[in-house]
Amino acid sequence: MVNPNMTEAMTHDMAVIARAVAGSAADIIALTAPRGFPYIASRAEAQVAGGIALEMIAENLKGVDAVIMAAFGDPGLRGARELFDIPVIGMAEAAMMSACMLGERFSIVTFSPVMRRWYLDCVADSGLMARCTGVRTPLGHPLQIDGLRENLKDDLASLARQAVEEDGADVVIMGGAPLAGLAPELAELVPAIVLDPIAAATAQAMALARITTRPGFALRACKPLAKPSVGLGPALSTIIAREQGA
Amino acid sequence: MVNPNMTEAMTHDMAVIARAVAGSAADIIALTAPRGFPYIASRAEAQVAGGIALEMIAENLKGVDAVIMAAFGDPGLRGARELFDIPVIGMAEAAMMSACMLGERFSIVTFSPVMRRWYLDCVADSGLMARCTGVRTPLGHPLQIDGLRENLKDDLASLARQAVEEDGADVVIMGGAPLAGLAPELAELVPAIVLDPIAAATAQAMALARITTRPGFALRACKPLAKPSVGLGPALSTIIAREQGA
Amino acid sequence: MVNPNMTEAMTHDMAVIARAVAGSAADIIALTAPRGFPYIASRAEAQVAGGIALEMIAENLKGVDAVIMAAFGDPGLRGARELFDIPVIGMAEAAMMSACMLGERFSIVTFSPVMRRWYLDCVADSGLMARCTGVRTPLGHPLQIDGLRENLKDDLASLARQAVEEDGADVVIMGGAPLAGLAPELAELVPAIVLDPIAAATAQAMALARITTRPGFALRACKPLAKPSVGLGPALSTIIAREQGA
Amino acid sequence: MVNPNMTEAMTHDMAVIARAVAGSAADIIALTAPRGFPYIASRAEAQVAGGIALEMIAENLKGVDAVIMAAFGDPGLRGARELFDIPVIGMAEAAMMSACMLGERFSIVTFSPVMRRWYLDCVADSGLMARCTGVRTPLGHPLQIDGLRENLKDDLASLARQAVEEDGADVVIMGGAPLAGLAPELAELVPAIVLDPIAAATAQAMALARITTRPGFALRACKPLAKPSVGLGPALSTIIAREQGA
Amino acid sequence: MVNPNMTEAMTHDMAVIARAVAGSAADIIALTAPRGFPYIASRAEAQVAGGIALEMIAENLKGVDAVIMAAFGDPGLRGARELFDIPVIGMAEAAMMSACMLGERFSIVTFSPVMRRWYLDCVADSGLMARCTGVRTPLGHPLQIDGLRENLKDDLASLARQAVEEDGADVVIMGGAPLAGLAPELAELVPAIVLDPIAAATAQAMALARITTRPGFALRACKPLAKPSVGLGPALSTIIAREQGA
Amino acid sequence: MVNPNMTEAMTHDMAVIARAVAGSAADIIALTAPRGFPYIASRAEAQVAGGIALEMIAENLKGVDAVIMAAFGDPGLRGARELFDIPVIGMAEAAMMSACMLGERFSIVTFSPVMRRWYLDCVADSGLMARCTGVRTPLGHPLQIDGLRENLKDDLASLARQAVEEDGADVVIMGGAPLAGLAPELAELVPAIVLDPIAAATAQAMALARITTRPGFALRACKPLAKPSVGLGPALSTIIAREQGA
Repeated sequence: MVNPNMTEAMTHDMAVIARAVAGSAADIIALTAPRGFPYIASRAEAQVAGGIALEMIAENLKGVDAVIMAAFGDPGLRGARELFDIPVIGMAEAAMMSACMLGERFSIVTFSPVMRRWYLDCVADSGLMARCTGVRTPLGHPLQIDGLRENLKDDLASLARQAVEEDGADVVIMGGAPLAGLAPELAELVPAIVLDPIAAATAQAMALARITTRPGFALRACKPLAKPSVGLGPALSTIIAREQGA
Repeated sequence: MVNPNMTEAMTHDMAVIARAVAGSAADIIALTAPRGFPYIASRAEAQVAGGIALEMIAENLKGVDAVIMAAFGDPGLRGARELFDIPVIGMAEAAMMSACMLGERFSIVTFSPVMRRWYLDCVADSGLMARCTGVRTPLGHPLQIDGLRENLKDDLASLARQAVEEDGADVVIMGGAPLAGLAPELAELVPAIVLDPIAAATAQAMALARITTRPGFALRACKPLAKPSVGLGPALSTIIAREQGA
Repeated sequence: MVNPNMTEAMTHDMAVIARAVAGSAADIIALTAPRGFPYIASRAEAQVAGGIALEMIAENLKGVDAVIMAAFGDPGLRGARELFDIPVIGMAEAAMMSACMLGERFSIVTFSPVMRRWYLDCVADSGLMARCTGVRTPLGHPLQIDGLRENLKDDLASLARQAVEEDGADVVIMGGAPLAGLAPELAELVPAIVLDPIAAATAQAMALARITTRPGFALRACKPLAKPSVGLGPALSTIIAREQGA
Repeated sequence: MVNPNMTEAMTHDMAVIARAVAGSAADIIALTAPRGFPYIASRAEAQVAGGIALEMIAENLKGVDAVIMAAFGDPGLRGARELFDIPVIGMAEAAMMSACMLGERFSIVTFSPVMRRWYLDCVADSGLMARCTGVRTPLGHPLQIDGLRENLKDDLASLARQAVEEDGADVVIMGGAPLAGLAPELAELVPAIVLDPIAAATAQAMALARITTRPGFALRACKPLAKPSVGLGPALSTIIAREQGA
Repeated sequence: MVNPNMTEAMTHDMAVIARAVAGSAADIIALTAPRGFPYIASRAEAQVAGGIALEMIAENLKGVDAVIMAAFGDPGLRGARELFDIPVIGMAEAAMMSACMLGERFSIVTFSPVMRRWYLDCVADSGLMARCTGVRTPLGHPLQIDGLRENLKDDLASLARQAVEEDGADVVIMGGAPLAGLAPELAELVPAIVLDPIAAATAQAMALARITTRPGFALRACKPLAKPSVGLGPALSTIIAREQGA
Repeated sequence: MVNPNMTEAMTHDMAVIARAVAGSAADIIALTAPRGFPYIASRAEAQVAGGIALEMIAENLKGVDAVIMAAFGDPGLRGARELFDIPVIGMAEAAMMSACMLGERFSIVTFSPVMRRWYLDCVADSGLMARCTGVRTPLGHPLQIDGLRENLKDDLASLARQAVEEDGADVVIMGGAPLAGLAPELAELVPAIVLDPIAAATAQAMALARITTRPGFALRACKPLAKPSVGLGPALSTIIAREQGA
C-alpha cells in the first residue's frame, strides 16, 4: 500500500482499514511518500507525486503480490500498471468498479470543491462517466484536514443523501484519503450502499492477485521496451532498463 | 452460484473453478436451472432464463452472502441486483471490471459468432465500450458444445493473440460458460493477461461481500416498491411483495 | 397490442387510443397479461413480465402484422424482436424515435420518481441519450394509480412546461401506461409537441408493417438458432425450437 | 415531397414509391428543385440546396400535412423543422429511426465512396452512431448515375451481405436517391431487413401527421423569433417574418 | 472576414478587434452580407445565410490567405471548408478549440436564451461536448441588440462567474457577434480566462495559414467532385464546376 | 519550448522548425531535459518526464510568453496548465485541435506501434476521439531512431495515404518528435493536409499568447491552492507554495 502523500497519520488510518479487510488472508505493507506533498489535490501535484510513487513501488517490490495506490485520484496508476508485473490497484478506480458491480449509478462525495476537477478526470479516465451521477462536495475548502472526518460527518451524510435522492445514485463513494473509515459510520444514515475506497482497493487487490499469475504479467505485449535513464532512483531505473534482478 | 442454463456438466466445471478460487474462505453452492435452455445464446433466451434465475435465487437465499450469475451475458442481473439485499455478481461484468483494473483495454474471445451480439450488448450496458477492443470469434458456430475447450483451444489462442496484436488488448476474457477453465491453459500462449470469467466472478463476489453490509443493502432507496404478483414461484413472490420472512 | 401488465382497465384505455389512431386501416387485438404484476415499475418486474410477454405474443401470432409492447419501458422488446418475424414496437422506443423526427430534443414526463431509473435505462438502450433532456416526475410516488390522469393533470402540465422552458425540450413524451390519453389534453397547455406513447406505437406499427415484408424477416441472419427448451408454454417453445408450424 | 435535387427522373421514381406506400391514405405532391444541382453529394452543395428546399416548402405549404425532404442526407432538415408547423421528415433520418425499431444495428449501403462523409455526418447528427455499423460503398465513384440501380445491383447486394455478415447489421438501408426502389429487389438476396428510405420517409410522414396536431406545432417555444429578411423568395420571407397569411 | 449577417455596425466592431489582433502581420478584408438577415439566430436562418456566405467567399477569394466566418454558430462552415483551398475558420469553433488549449472545460455565455439551441449544436458538431460545461444566458431575449454590450455587461459578468463557480469552467467564451469586444472588459471580473471569439478566430486564421500550404489544400481527396449548377452566383458556380480560373 | 526527452538533436531539429514558423514574431528558447529518458514512449516514462518538465518550466519562466511541451503525447500538460500563468501548449493537442479546424476527421501517423497506446490516450483525453480515424504505424518498432525520417519516409507516406483512402482522414498528423520536419516533404505525396506537430504547436503558442492576458491567468479559480513540498527543485517548489517571486 503506497501512500503518495507524505502524511503518516493518513497512511496509518488507511492501513488500519486495509488490515481489517485483509484479515489473516494478506499482509499489508504500508508506505508513506518520503518526498512530495502533505496532501495531493491537483493535477500538477499528481504529476510529481505519481513519479515518486513509481520509485516507491520499485524499491519495495520484493515479496509483494499486489500494489494499492493509496490516494484517491490514483496518481501514477497507468504508468505503474504498464511497468510492474503484478496487479496495481487505484483507490478511486477500485471504488468505482466495485460500485458498478453493486448498483447502476454511483456518486462520489468528498470534503472539498478543490478535488472535484481531479476526481471527475478519474471518472472520465475510467470510462465510467455514464454511470456516475457526479461529485458532491461542501461549498468551501475546509480550514484544516485534521479532524475532517468528525467535523464534516453531518455535512457529508447530507451530501450523500442528496446524491441518492436528487441525483439517483445507488452507491456512494466517500472519496479522499482523509475520509478513510467514514463509510461504515454513514451506512445507517444514507439510503444507499456506502463504499470506503481503501477497503474497496484492498478487497480488489486480493481478488485480482487471486485470479492472475506472475508469468501472465511478464509476457504482456503492452510492457514498455527496455530503456536507459538518467536521474531516477536505482530500483526504478533498473526496472525500466529491464536489467537482471529487476 | 446460479447457472441459468440447464446443463449440469457446465455447472460442475464452473463449480470446480469457483471452489479453487474460493479455497477455504467461502463455500460455493452450485445450482443448475430446472427449466429453460441447455445453453443461452440470444436475448430472447436471456429474457426467459433471467426470470428463471430470479426464481432460483429467491428460493436459495438462506445463508448466502453473495450470488454469482453463472452465465456470460448476465441474464437477469439488473433485476436481481435491485431485488436482493446481497451482492449479485455477473460473470461478464465481473470479468470486464476486473480487466479494467489490470490493463487499459480488454477483448472478449468466445467460441461462436452467434454470441457476439449479446456480448457486445453486455459491454455497452456496463458503460465500458470505450475500453473494449471488440469480440473475436471463430467464423462459424461449432458443431457441438461438448469438448469445445479442447477442440477449439488452438483457434481460440490464435484469436486471443490477434486481439492483442491487432486490436491492442491488454487483457483477454475467455467468454462463455463452455470455455470455463480454459484461461490458465492459454496463459503461456497469449502475450496478455487472460481472464476466466467464473474465477473473476468468484473473486469479485468474495471482495464485494467483504466490503458491504447486509443493513446497507436493506436501506437502499433504489429497491422496488412492494408489489403483489400472480403466477410466480412462492419465494420470489414473497420477496417482491416484501412479506414477512422475505 | 400486448399489455404485459395485468390491469385490464389499462389495456382498455390504451386500446381506445390505438383504435382511434388506426381508424379503419388496422384491427387492434388487445391482450392483458394473465400472470405477473398489476403495474410494472422495476427492472426485476420487467425481467419476469418480459418473459410473460414473449409467451403472449407466441400464442397470438396468427394473422398479426405487427406487435405493440404496450408498457412504457418495453419489457422483453429486444428478445421479441429477435424471435418473431414481424415488427415488434415498444411504446417507449416508438415515442422516442417519433420525438426525434419532430424536434431536436425530447423530455419524458411521468407520474412517479420510481419510474425514472427504468425509463432512463430505456433512453440509454435506444442510443438517444444525447437527444434526451431528462425525465421529469413529481417528487413522490402517487397514493393510487386509479384516477392518476385527472389528479395529476395540472402537476404534469407544469412539469412539461419546465421540461420545455428549463431543459430545452422540443417534444414532451407523457410516459407510462396510466397516462395514456393525457397528451391531447395537454396540447394547449405546453409550448411543445406532446406525444402519447400508445398513439406513437400504433402509428409506428402501421408504418413499419407497411415498409417491410414477411420474407425479409424470415431470412434474417440475426435470428437465434433453433433450440430445445423445458417449461415454456407450447407456442413459445415451438417457435424457439423452429418446429413446423412456428 | 420536396426533392432538393434538380433531376426530374429521380423525383418521378421516388414519387412512384411514395404513392405505392401511401395508397389511398394520402396524396403525394412531388416537387423538383428549380435551381441548384443535378445531384447533391457534398456538404457545400447541401448548404445551398437546403436553402432552396426551404423556399420550395414555403411556396407549397397550402393543404400539406407533412413534408418529406427527398434527398438522403436531409439538406435543410433542421431549419425546416424549426420553421414550419407540420412534420418535416428527412429520408435519411426516417430510414435510420425506422431501422432502429426493427433491429439492434443498421448499416447504410450506397453507390459511391463520395457520399460516405455526408452520410456519416447524418448518422452522427441523429445521435444514433452507436447503433450504426458503418457505411459500405463500392471502391470508386460510378461513371454515370443513370442506370445505377441495374448496373450496381449485384455489387450492392454483395456489400449489403458484408454489412450483415462482417459488421453485424440487422437492417440495411439502401441510401441515396438514385437507389430508390432497389430495396425490395434485394430482399431475397440479403439476410437482413432491407429498407428503402423514400418508403420509410413516406410511412413516417403519415405516422407523424397522424399523432400530432397543427395547433401543437404552432405553440412551440422553439420556433425562431419573427425576423425581417432581404433577398429571399416572398413565401419564405413572409413565414420568417411571421406576417399575416403565413 | 465574412459576416453572414447584414448589420454593418457588427462587421465594423468585429473588424476593429480582428485588426488589433492581426497588427501588421495580416490585412483584414471585412465583408457584410448583402442579403439575408440582420442577425442570424436560428438553424433556418443559418441554412440560408450559410449559402450566402459561400457566395461571398467565392466572390472575394483573390489574394486571400484564410477566411473567417464571422458569426458565432459558424453558418456554412463545413461546406466552405470542403470547397475552398484555404483555411476557413469559424468563430465558434476557433473559440472552442482555443479554449480547450487553455483549460480543461469551457463555458459559453451569450445574450439571449434564443441562441442556446444553435450554440449547443455547434459544440456537439465540434465533438467537444465533454469539455463544455454548458451555455449560460439571461432568462429573456433582450429588447434590442443595439447597446447590448453596455446594458448587459453586469449580467453577463455574473453569468460568467456562475459558469466558473457552479459549472467548473476554466475558460469562458463570450459568444455572439453583438458581444464582440466585451471579453477584455470582463477579464478582471471573472476568475477564468475570458475569450473573444473574433479575436480567437483571427489568431487561428493566422496560425493555420502559417502551417499549411496552398498546394496541400488543392490535392485533398475530400474535395467535392466537379458539378454543374443552376441559379448560383457566377463565382460560386465556377468553383463548384472546377472551371478554369477557379 | 521544453523537450522532456534528453536527446539534444531532437530539440535542435524541432527548434529549427519552430523558428521557421515564428519568424521574427517570436523568440524560441529551446530546452532539453537534463534527466529522464532519451525518448519517451510509455505512460510510465511520461509520468516521470512530465514531472521533470514541470521543473524545467518553473526554472525558465522569466520573460516567457508561452510554453510548448515539445513531445508528442504531451507529458505533464494538464499539470503545467493548472500551475503556470501563461499558455502551455502540447504538441499533440495543438496538432489535433489545428487539424479539427482544417477538416472533419484526422489521422495520426507515427513511426512505431509502441506509440499507439499513448497517442490514443492523448486523443481520448482531448475529447476528440469522434473526429479521429485512428493511429497508423508500421508493423514493427524501428531498429534505430536516428535517420528515421529518411528511412521510413516511403512507408509513412504510404500509411498516410491509407489513412486518407481507407479511413477517411482529411488531415494527417505526423506524430512523434523524431518525425519533426517530415510533414512538408509529404505534402505532395498525400491527398490530404499534412501537419507537423511542432509547427502547429508554435503557431498555436503565438495565437494563444496573442488573445490572452497575464492577469486573466493569474485570477483563475482553477489554480491549485498554495502548498508546501519536499524534494522538488527550488523554482517549482516556490511556485507551488505561491511564495513571493513566483
